[in-house]
Amino acid sequence: MKRKGTNFERELLDELWNRGFAAIRVAGSGAMSYPSPDIVASNGKKILAFEVKMRRNLPLYLKKDDLEELLVFSKIFGAEAYFAVKIAYKSWRFFRADKLESLKIDNENFEKGLELGEVLGIYEQRRLTDT
Amino acid sequence: MKRKGTNFERELLDELWNRGFAAIRVAGSGAMSYPSPDIVASNGKKILAFEVKMRRNLPLYLKKDDLEELLVFSKIFGAEAYFAVKIAYKSWRFFRADKLESLKIDNENFEKGLELGEVLGIYEQRRLTDT
Repeated sequence: MKRKGTNFERELLDELWNRGFAAIRVAGSGAMSYPSPDIVASNGKKILAFEVKMRRNLPLYLKKDDLEELLVFSKIFGAEAYFAVKIAYKSWRFFRADKLESLKIDNENFEKGLELGEVLGIYEQRRLTDT
Repeated sequence: MKRKGTNFERELLDELWNRGFAAIRVAGSGAMSYPSPDIVASNGKKILAFEVKMRRNLPLYLKKDDLEELLVFSKIFGAEAYFAVKIAYKSWRFFRADKLESLKIDNENFEKGLELGEVLGIYEQRRLTDT
């Protein structure tokens, strides 16, 4: 799943650049001796750190070590920290690391995850006016 | 010089972490379709982007493309942009990309480069009091 993983990370990078963020993939984030996320992005106002997780199916069990590493990095860097979750045939969902309710992402709480637009502060809310 | 280059980048990463910055190396910065530096660092206040250049000897000729790429990335990301220059047997010197006087770094202007402490805003000036 390594190859595919990189493709999905590129997909996320493309989206970030398209929406006005400068985004980079972190080199050897797994092998590094320092805490580091997979992707870092900023538009000069909002700074974001993403730990990317891709799975074929739910549930996904996030690791406590990944969570702590992500939080430590983001605190020093000054970034908002998110798990970016890609499940096959579903669109990306984002989970704020400092507000994570559970390390288990099942069908129910996957749907509660944020969409990218919400993470970036581009709220695409449609007000349903009563008629 | 690829292997050695990575070692020097690690040395710079270590220094940044030691001084309270979260720092990451950018994956495949050369091969990417987006502008990207070699290293990005932040302490939550100061955000820095470095393009790292290592040579055995001076002069070093910086590339205009590298400069433009670094400036474009840093403008969107909201980072201060620097060329980080390592010459064999000399300590690192840093050159602010948006204030570069020349693309040629020779012995004379190498010495005018900033030290890391100055880049990070940690001025280690010693006032020489007359006695």
